[in-house]
Amino acid sequence: MGWQPNREVPTSLQQQIMDWMTDNIARGDWVVGTKLPTQRQLALQFGVNRSTVQQALEELKADGLLEAKVGSCVFVAENSWHVFVKQAQPNWQNYIEASLHKPNYHTIQLINEYEQRDDVIRLGTGELAPSLLPTAEIEASLQELSLQPTMLGYSSPQGSLSLRLAICEYVKKKGIQTAPQNVCIVSGALQALQLIAVGLLEQGSIVFQEETSYLNSVHPFQSVGMQMVPVVRDTHLHTTLKERKRKRQAIFYTVPTLNNPTGAVWSQTEREKLYDACKDLRIPIIEDDVYHELLFDDTTEPIKAMDESGQVLYIGSVSKTLSPGLRIGWVIGPSTVIERLADIKMQTDYGSSAISQEIVLHWLQTGKYEKHIESLRKTLQKRADYVVDLLKEKFAGIANWDQPKGGFYIWIKFHEPIVNKAFFMQLLQHLVLINPGFIYDPQDVHHVRLSYAYATLEDLKTGLEILYAIAIETIEHQ
Amino acid sequence: MGWQPNREVPTSLQQQIMDWMTDNIARGDWVVGTKLPTQRQLALQFGVNRSTVQQALEELKADGLLEAKVGSCVFVAENSWHVFVKQAQPNWQNYIEASLHKPNYHTIQLINEYEQRDDVIRLGTGELAPSLLPTAEIEASLQELSLQPTMLGYSSPQGSLSLRLAICEYVKKKGIQTAPQNVCIVSGALQALQLIAVGLLEQGSIVFQEETSYLNSVHPFQSVGMQMVPVVRDTHLHTTLKERKRKRQAIFYTVPTLNNPTGAVWSQTEREKLYDACKDLRIPIIEDDVYHELLFDDTTEPIKAMDESGQVLYIGSVSKTLSPGLRIGWVIGPSTVIERLADIKMQTDYGSSAISQEIVLHWLQTGKYEKHIESLRKTLQKRADYVVDLLKEKFAGIANWDQPKGGFYIWIKFHEPIVNKAFFMQLLQHLVLINPGFIYDPQDVHHVRLSYAYATLEDLKTGLEILYAIAIETIEHQ
Repeated sequence: MGWQPNREVPTSLQQQIMDWMTDNIARGDWVVGTKLPTQRQLALQFGVNRSTVQQALEELKADGLLEAKVGSCVFVAENSWHVFVKQAQPNWQNYIEASLHKPNYHTIQLINEYEQRDDVIRLGTGELAPSLLPTAEIEASLQELSLQPTMLGYSSPQGSLSLRLAICEYVKKKGIQTAPQNVCIVSGALQALQLIAVGLLEQGSIVFQEETSYLNSVHPFQSVGMQMVPVVRDTHLHTTLKERKRKRQAIFYTVPTLNNPTGAVWSQTEREKLYDACKDLRIPIIEDDVYHELLFDDTTEPIKAMDESGQVLYIGSVSKTLSPGLRIGWVIGPSTVIERLADIKMQTDYGSSAISQEIVLHWLQTGKYEKHIESLRKTLQKRADYVVDLLKEKFAGIANWDQPKGGFYIWIKFHEPIVNKAFFMQLLQHLVLINPGFIYDPQDVHHVRLSYAYATLEDLKTGLEILYAIAIETIEHQ
Repeated sequence: MGWQPNREVPTSLQQQIMDWMTDNIARGDWVVGTKLPTQRQLALQFGVNRSTVQQALEELKADGLLEAKVGSCVFVAENSWHVFVKQAQPNWQNYIEASLHKPNYHTIQLINEYEQRDDVIRLGTGELAPSLLPTAEIEASLQELSLQPTMLGYSSPQGSLSLRLAICEYVKKKGIQTAPQNVCIVSGALQALQLIAVGLLEQGSIVFQEETSYLNSVHPFQSVGMQMVPVVRDTHLHTTLKERKRKRQAIFYTVPTLNNPTGAVWSQTEREKLYDACKDLRIPIIEDDVYHELLFDDTTEPIKAMDESGQVLYIGSVSKTLSPGLRIGWVIGPSTVIERLADIKMQTDYGSSAISQEIVLHWLQTGKYEKHIESLRKTLQKRADYVVDLLKEKFAGIANWDQPKGGFYIWIKFHEPIVNKAFFMQLLQHLVLINPGFIYDPQDVHHVRLSYAYATLEDLKTGLEILYAIAIETIEHQ
């Protein structure tokens, strides 16, 4: 997507849109059965009035290239292909619809799409701003790498041994004792979840998670048939887990430190409680700890630090701290489990980028990594303070939030139930992109995940003003 | 694995083995239910007599740490954990066994494992020798990269736009006309197959392939429930496909240029025949073309070059030419299909390494890539000639083969049916690693995939001598 008609040429906007769509179909790019976005979305994409889109679609329907099926949805017509070439094309759309993997939710696809645009203010983006990435330093460190020919071949299934050794040293400071055979290098934390899903769980397994969970916005487990069970962590935790698990296979997924999206940090007692309950019920724990480094006040130990029986699969990554583009993370667990995950990784992509592994090794070994994190933490703290001040100024009457303890996010709760898809789309029309609460908990119409890590300070201010204006407008119209 | 007892210390070999195994269990690394390799394999790994292994295992059984279950198989005992700590551990082994993804075949796991060792002669390895990789040039090119902060963030789902543009230019020379929206960057060709498996096919779909196929040695489709159907490409092709497909979803997987493992190159007529049959039956084709660049005499066009209706998904990669460690490949297809694959890639690993993408872009843009391939082709031709000469000298009476047309492989066929698992293991005991035909066709006991691309010329000679000696011995004992 991303195409827009050109206002500088004599051809009408409608004609340009028709030509563009016709080309897409003629080239075989929009295959038979492709569902077009709604008129509203297309108007937004093209930067034109909805009526212009409507007329273009009507013309193409008359030409037999498009057809309306359900309600107002428009599809590439079954016979469209004959208009051009009179030959058959595989019915790709059938293939896509029948296949195993679920598509991303529409809201998330829109977020992915709009995150590619330069003119959008990104209030929710879960990554560091380009200005916070140590780009020049990474570029400089490329010159310090000395490559060995063997590195550039197919790697060992678990990843570079030197990097695994460096990771063992690194996590020791968090209280985790481990060895290279217990570490598997992955292409980011999400891949770790994917490998666990297909390598350790059977269909119908239960994945316990918190009510509001990052796992609802991606779906490594759901897409292969696991059942997500949200649990409240209260005094009945042990009983709840036991009752829900029964004889089925289960695993507990958690982000106990700087939770995504809520930003919460569990106390030591809360960690112990979960660990003990799971140990007693022999439920393994996945501890997703990718935000740990970004605690403003780092006195918390991972659950993995208290693990003596190989109960916890621990996930770390440099995506939230150094660069998501490197695609390097790690899983730590019993070596039997790690070998299994490595075997599947081998069958999936033959290992992670050797150069990326070398860069991370270099940053860990030279101490550059920890030095960078130290200064990054201070910058994030300043950004957090800045956004909290803006919130206090404007939002105090209509929303509440907790003081951020680190990481990227403020989980802001509107008093009124206004955060629905229409609210999200309305903000998008004003070129403000938010991460609405409902992508983390489908029932949630109160929350927005604000990120103070991505947008510029100026954009954060403008974006929050627009968010405020539309929130007020929505509340008044309710 | 990889550990070996130390012969320089006073502790006996048996005791060292026992201590090592005990440690593995005590640390929770060898989880309850872990199946140990056979005594023969352990003896091979440790470099000791089988009796030493046997005694060590007996002692540990007596201690209650190990138990024999089926036949001579030995497992970590259900109660082993109580010996140390009297606490429960999750039954990881159950998790592994019940999970969705099949493990790699044992022979392939052994190949992966022994490929990590320095003392093994690798006669079958499907990658370039370290000396053939342009390591110094890649290292030098790192200094020419200029990184942009936005590159180091999360990438667009389809991968870097500049790289996709460069790939479009590159494949144009092979007769393929395409555009960036038709390209998705992947972490190697195997990931492309994985994405197609979960993103385009339903369970029970048919994947047509040649009788001897690379897909039998990896299993991206099998592991998610697709049915592999080998077909002979003869005059009945259309009828065969029609009869086997019936109303089911199907796709045809092929490596028409320098096939892995056979090295075959299809003629233009053969390509057209397959394309026409599939077009008529609306069966999409996956054209795996990762060896194309390595044709000694490049006059062949990919099937994709004749594709006008988005019938062919075309896969390319730099793993066979520049460096497998970069983990960069691409899929070319209709944009609706590409967007679908990108959406799943997004959910799987959030894109491929940005640095790897930049390196490949640099090599394509500067012409370094094509220059490198030109010289690589000559080197491979020389190596092929060298191995063919060795074969002629020794193997002429017991085997036959075709003259290699490029790539890495000679598909050598022994007259006698000697290439079984025992033959493979016997060579391994002599530290010679082969890729036996049965990993590409379970019925095959005649072939070995020789690779002239990996081992040194000296190792190739020694390895072939050992292969010859053991082949003769086996034939005589039959």
